[in-house]
Amino acid sequence: MEKKKTTIVLFSGDYDKAMAAYIIANGAAAYDHEVTIFHTFWGLNALRKEEQVPVKKGFMERMFEKMMPRGADKMGLSKMNYGGMGPKMIKQVMNKHNAMPLPDLINLAQEQDVKLIACTMTMDLLGLQKEELLDDIEYAGVAAYIGDAEEGQINLFI
Amino acid sequence: MEKKKTTIVLFSGDYDKAMAAYIIANGAAAYDHEVTIFHTFWGLNALRKEEQVPVKKGFMERMFEKMMPRGADKMGLSKMNYGGMGPKMIKQVMNKHNAMPLPDLINLAQEQDVKLIACTMTMDLLGLQKEELLDDIEYAGVAAYIGDAEEGQINLFI
Amino acid sequence: MEKKKTTIVLFSGDYDKAMAAYIIANGAAAYDHEVTIFHTFWGLNALRKEEQVPVKKGFMERMFEKMMPRGADKMGLSKMNYGGMGPKMIKQVMNKHNAMPLPDLINLAQEQDVKLIACTMTMDLLGLQKEELLDDIEYAGVAAYIGDAEEGQINLFI
Repeated sequence: MEKKKTTIVLFSGDYDKAMAAYIIANGAAAYDHEVTIFHTFWGLNALRKEEQVPVKKGFMERMFEKMMPRGADKMGLSKMNYGGMGPKMIKQVMNKHNAMPLPDLINLAQEQDVKLIACTMTMDLLGLQKEELLDDIEYAGVAAYIGDAEEGQINLFI
Repeated sequence: MEKKKTTIVLFSGDYDKAMAAYIIANGAAAYDHEVTIFHTFWGLNALRKEEQVPVKKGFMERMFEKMMPRGADKMGLSKMNYGGMGPKMIKQVMNKHNAMPLPDLINLAQEQDVKLIACTMTMDLLGLQKEELLDDIEYAGVAAYIGDAEEGQINLFI
Repeated sequence: MEKKKTTIVLFSGDYDKAMAAYIIANGAAAYDHEVTIFHTFWGLNALRKEEQVPVKKGFMERMFEKMMPRGADKMGLSKMNYGGMGPKMIKQVMNKHNAMPLPDLINLAQEQDVKLIACTMTMDLLGLQKEELLDDIEYAGVAAYIGDAEEGQINLFI
């Protein structure tokens, strides 16, 4: 029997929305779905390496690089961000309740063979280069997304 | 013939987005779908009782409780909130056009047997307890969501 | 063989989210899907004509009209809007990378027979009239949406 499929477009660059995306992705993978997360626009930030990677880029691309959070752990909240206080509070209660922080959820997804894809078109727009993103991810565009999603049982835009 | 299914993850705590979620849910129920709304993160606020419920909780949980809107009627807008002016304007035009306010949409959903589910993991994180949420709702986690959504014709994340 | 179907609810009035919606819609249409975009709430602004259209309306409706962006090109970003600087930056890099601006993506969608629908209920709420919206679009409510989406392979809420 063919495996069920789940696809998620992660457009958002918010810590809480990315958490929701990865919790659903890991849940679906645990239920034996083939799972794909397409990171596009601000969602690409979840795939950035924490350390600065020396790459050549233009002025605008450098500005985007500076203004956007470098990696999952640096992302803000969609609500009650309070200049960074909100994420600290959330991480504190997550720790208390033994909930996995976002970088661990991403690791778990990779261990469960969730396919993490970076949208090449928006990488170009935001000036992000492969060297700046996590290893072992894939690169694709909207055509690949349509191909996957049209066979998916669960397709979400987050 | 098996009933069609609609599932909605209501992540957002915005009045307008919750309205959209409940309008779609009620529409699908009217077309004889089995409908489930999973309230997670800020979407849990739509399920809070309006009155304060005396429960024991820690300091962080108390802070979240105070900062988050108590019930559907207190939620803000995703756009043009203007410190609460936006919701007043929207409610005024809704009244003029006989559109149902959010608390009525939630009541209607319950009357139409839309299954309202509160996500237990994010209830823990935000320190919300069952006593603080509406009666006659259900409690579940991501596994239950995957089980429902993989059989759904319409699955949305709002 | 019946055509595959994609439906998108465009709730958001953000330039970047509307771009994502129209890129997916155009991609799905290129893969021979029947595609529908339901514009509701702030997403209606993507359908507004750029020029002011003289119509009679009440005070509240006039206020909404003034406060909301007139057409796709005037919309802001969901992140890093910086009072309008963000959209300028994004449009500049889009131009550099030959990416289509939103108004062109909307034109392309119309050429590819993507069905653009304006939600009549929220048009009423926001006081938008048919004369103010693009030509050659359709008008419908939640019932039509459910009818389309329950047969869709890809259904997204953006």
